[in-house]
Amino acid sequence: MTRFASSVSALRSSEIRDLMKLAASPDIISFSGGMPGNELFPLDMMDKIYDSLTDKDKQIAMQYGPTSGLPMLLESLSDYLEKKGLPVKKNRLMVTTGSLQAINILAKAFIDPGDNVLVESPSFIGALSAFRSYEANIISVPLNSDGIDIEQLKVMLESTQPKPKFLYFLPNFHNPAGIVYSQEVKQQMIDLLRDKDIPLIEDDVYSDLYFYKGDVAKMKNIKTIDPEGIDVCFTGSFSKILGPGLRLGWMLVPEHIYQKCELIKQSIDACSPSLSQVIADKFLRNGYIQEYTENVRLEYKKRGLAMIDALEKHLPEYVSFEKPRGGFYIWLHLPKGTDSTLILKKAIEKGVVFVTGKTFDPNGVKNDCMRVSFCNTDVDVINKGIPIVAEAIREVCG
Amino acid sequence: MTRFASSVSALRSSEIRDLMKLAASPDIISFSGGMPGNELFPLDMMDKIYDSLTDKDKQIAMQYGPTSGLPMLLESLSDYLEKKGLPVKKNRLMVTTGSLQAINILAKAFIDPGDNVLVESPSFIGALSAFRSYEANIISVPLNSDGIDIEQLKVMLESTQPKPKFLYFLPNFHNPAGIVYSQEVKQQMIDLLRDKDIPLIEDDVYSDLYFYKGDVAKMKNIKTIDPEGIDVCFTGSFSKILGPGLRLGWMLVPEHIYQKCELIKQSIDACSPSLSQVIADKFLRNGYIQEYTENVRLEYKKRGLAMIDALEKHLPEYVSFEKPRGGFYIWLHLPKGTDSTLILKKAIEKGVVFVTGKTFDPNGVKNDCMRVSFCNTDVDVINKGIPIVAEAIREVCG
Repeated sequence: MTRFASSVSALRSSEIRDLMKLAASPDIISFSGGMPGNELFPLDMMDKIYDSLTDKDKQIAMQYGPTSGLPMLLESLSDYLEKKGLPVKKNRLMVTTGSLQAINILAKAFIDPGDNVLVESPSFIGALSAFRSYEANIISVPLNSDGIDIEQLKVMLESTQPKPKFLYFLPNFHNPAGIVYSQEVKQQMIDLLRDKDIPLIEDDVYSDLYFYKGDVAKMKNIKTIDPEGIDVCFTGSFSKILGPGLRLGWMLVPEHIYQKCELIKQSIDACSPSLSQVIADKFLRNGYIQEYTENVRLEYKKRGLAMIDALEKHLPEYVSFEKPRGGFYIWLHLPKGTDSTLILKKAIEKGVVFVTGKTFDPNGVKNDCMRVSFCNTDVDVINKGIPIVAEAIREVCG
Repeated sequence: MTRFASSVSALRSSEIRDLMKLAASPDIISFSGGMPGNELFPLDMMDKIYDSLTDKDKQIAMQYGPTSGLPMLLESLSDYLEKKGLPVKKNRLMVTTGSLQAINILAKAFIDPGDNVLVESPSFIGALSAFRSYEANIISVPLNSDGIDIEQLKVMLESTQPKPKFLYFLPNFHNPAGIVYSQEVKQQMIDLLRDKDIPLIEDDVYSDLYFYKGDVAKMKNIKTIDPEGIDVCFTGSFSKILGPGLRLGWMLVPEHIYQKCELIKQSIDACSPSLSQVIADKFLRNGYIQEYTENVRLEYKKRGLAMIDALEKHLPEYVSFEKPRGGFYIWLHLPKGTDSTLILKKAIEKGVVFVTGKTFDPNGVKNDCMRVSFCNTDVDVINKGIPIVAEAIREVCG
């Protein structure tokens, strides 16, 4: 099922068929995806990397590797994460087949059918699907513009029995909400969870894609704030900073959790793709990653600011949103009770697609919000498409 | 946990540590792995393929693809499988992150905790791990030199309640047993399972690696014998015919099973590595696969025959084995009650490693057999290592 299909599941199946046909048209403007623009991939760097590979590198690329990842990538990735302040020596690093696999493995490690798990509302659909697939009982806590609602989290922690197996959250440039956690909210989370033996899953795949260098200091990960404290399973990915087609992510987790995860990974796919790992290692080791992320940051900033401008210019005043300071997404709050599926239908007829709010609702209900992405369309397309989105909103909401 | 570690789990942990240190030495002769020799990978073809990629190909390689696989690979792989007689149009093909992932997805699709599943004894450790990870109750049926023991299968089918969710088997150049199913046994399996609504999982990753072209005709897959009959989930892999480092396999399954598997795959890793898929597609489309498999077939035949010769020359007469006619493995039957872990210990001390029998026993007990692989060592190394294996056997068995 595509993300699009799940976003229109309220419609009749014949309607869905027609809409999907329209939405798949090459002329449609898509603000729906969470993938980098094709034109932004570092093809020159890929060529240079491939040309630099020795026969031995290529043999490693073609062969099985250790379940936890190729030693050379574990080394270069450790260095990369250590520079961000993550305690790579006190935790274990594992390379995974995308960060979604990291989340899936953690879900399998923690969840028995019926177990309670805590997530934000809204939350990342991929993680929700993984938790559902292991039959978790998903309990959601609302998200504010500075992070999870601490009062609600407190209530949920007190009232949830048996206690939740983990709290899953996205600290930076949230998908779909676009927000960044404040230092205060992170500290309050740490204080609330201390001594409760409820690990955090911190899913941080967008933090390199900031618009403003000055924001970096406040995007500290939990383990850099509280290195000896609560258990944190930190997940990340090469998908947004190199290419999702490599299918490479990672988890950095405490030793006792790592042991279980390695066994699970071994039975899922034995090891992550070695070819991708060899390339990612060179990408890190040659310093290409700094050069590349600097470039794409500028481009995503241009697109993000263009989308903010276009939304401010065209949206009716009853639609609000938090201006993103990085990442891929803008989350629009529609008038209470609006059915964003109706807006999507209108928008698709006019040639634009986005993702409805309830796609990201852990309960699959709350639909008076919607996600538009700016990662995969250039400024001209944004300027053409956003007025259409605004028009569709007006047609439904008046 | 490595395959090696699991094979010596009967030993004390300090002994295991010492043995693992020895076994990891670069000078050790390894007959334990199931990976192609590094020197056999088609590096020239990889270079030619990479050089032929257009910018568009490279963008596809870097981007997310559909969960079921890149359309171009689904097309070229369908053609490839159709030429083998598989009913690709009446079933659905999905590209997976290695064939182990295909088996894992099928396990998740079929198994609820406590469900009965049927396997051969011995069987592939990766599949056993996947079935165990979903808490299946694994019921084993002995394997003969021409396939599963039909009388025992009949008994198990009659006596197992609730009925098993599937029967998992390896038709060609069995791992670890090295045997090929006869036409008769396959037909008897089909007859036994007809109208029982118990699907087969047919794991066929070695059939391209035959020593004798004349054997191809008898290695027909179930769906080519009985296209309209029982449900078959057919799994295969690029690991042995291109490179395991790509992590690419496939499943060809009936539509109603496919739907569930696609949802599961989406929550496991979203899609298989696109970079690997682009390369595998060219490998198929340019006809490199025929050229390459012809070459490696000759090399594996040379190694396999050398190992058969060395075993016949050096083994005590109380050790028997079925001579392989393809694949990677030879399965040695030791005197009843022998503990092959003791032999492994002796062998490692002398500089050779292999895999103990109980590793492949669904019950993890029967240890009077052992697997030696000939895929990853050249003829000279085989001639040096097999006398050492024979010596270790004599020291334990007399």
